[in-house]
Amino acid sequence: MWIPKPLLRLTEALKALPGIGEHTAERLAFYLLSRRNSLEELARALAGAQELGFCSVCGVITDLDPCPICSDPAREDFITVVEKPSDVFLFESFGFYRGRYHVLGGLISPLDGIGPEDIRIDSLVRRCESGVVKEVIIALSPTVEGDATAFYLHELLKAKVRVTRIARGIPTGAELSLADPVTVKEAFLGRKEME
Amino acid sequence: MWIPKPLLRLTEALKALPGIGEHTAERLAFYLLSRRNSLEELARALAGAQELGFCSVCGVITDLDPCPICSDPAREDFITVVEKPSDVFLFESFGFYRGRYHVLGGLISPLDGIGPEDIRIDSLVRRCESGVVKEVIIALSPTVEGDATAFYLHELLKAKVRVTRIARGIPTGAELSLADPVTVKEAFLGRKEME
Repeated sequence: MWIPKPLLRLTEALKALPGIGEHTAERLAFYLLSRRNSLEELARALAGAQELGFCSVCGVITDLDPCPICSDPAREDFITVVEKPSDVFLFESFGFYRGRYHVLGGLISPLDGIGPEDIRIDSLVRRCESGVVKEVIIALSPTVEGDATAFYLHELLKAKVRVTRIARGIPTGAELSLADPVTVKEAFLGRKEME
Repeated sequence: MWIPKPLLRLTEALKALPGIGEHTAERLAFYLLSRRNSLEELARALAGAQELGFCSVCGVITDLDPCPICSDPAREDFITVVEKPSDVFLFESFGFYRGRYHVLGGLISPLDGIGPEDIRIDSLVRRCESGVVKEVIIALSPTVEGDATAFYLHELLKAKVRVTRIARGIPTGAELSLADPVTVKEAFLGRKEME
């Protein structure tokens, strides 16, 4: 059966992306081929993206090294530890945080064979040894892997710097009756004096 | 808020694809940035896809013009009329058809402002005037637009060539009790002598 090789290759490349199955890949390939502008814009965007790298200080995706956050002297000397580069852009989009970041690039997960040496922990320790860091704020997901990583970081850093973790509780605006028991228990344990 | 421009541009290009929302576009962009191989392979595949064009005879997507199907002297002189290039590859993948194709590139749809002159009907008429075509097999979806286009083509071509349309009925393997009334009625109307 004949099918143009470049079409096959495009379909295969799209199918390799997460969440894109065979049917969607074919649909996207034919869409791109029928709209030359979309195809060319995506090709240009990918070429541009190949110029991106990781910040040698915090590990975020950046076109400048160090990234504008790390090289901004006005940022406060708090380090928020996150799992992924996208977490940095998420927090930045919220706009309330004026400190710095450290991207681990993963979480400790013995079941997946990911140990402390496989993620960016060494460079975090070095940053904390500079003496200027006031606090390390752990902003990892409250999952098994997030908890294990947070626990490990706390043990490693507590002698050098104040280590905190963002609160667990009922999401603002959520229906209390829909919350799961673990979240409600965490919310009780994390209760605070009203002011 | 700082975010690298090439990252924004990649996210926007992905978001412009059908069925890909903001969240998926961001996820795909970060996936591509964290797996350089995927990013480079997709970039190469898109570059290759830019070399593809449409067959000047049948209208299918091809890297050769005329396409291998049109230039194959062993193909029988039946023309199956389809809506999209992907229909050709679908039928070819089934392997039972040994005739030729004609891709309309759309269906007549007055509500969307698409008339007969907006799709590849003129070139189909010219092919049917060559005298070698034995039959035009209309393989359009049994929708309002597919029916309108089939009706128009039949009126236009019936004096020149035999025009047939693929059968409607109960899909093979389907539960009769789950079929809709219109399909069941069409299946009754299309009943055939058992041999």
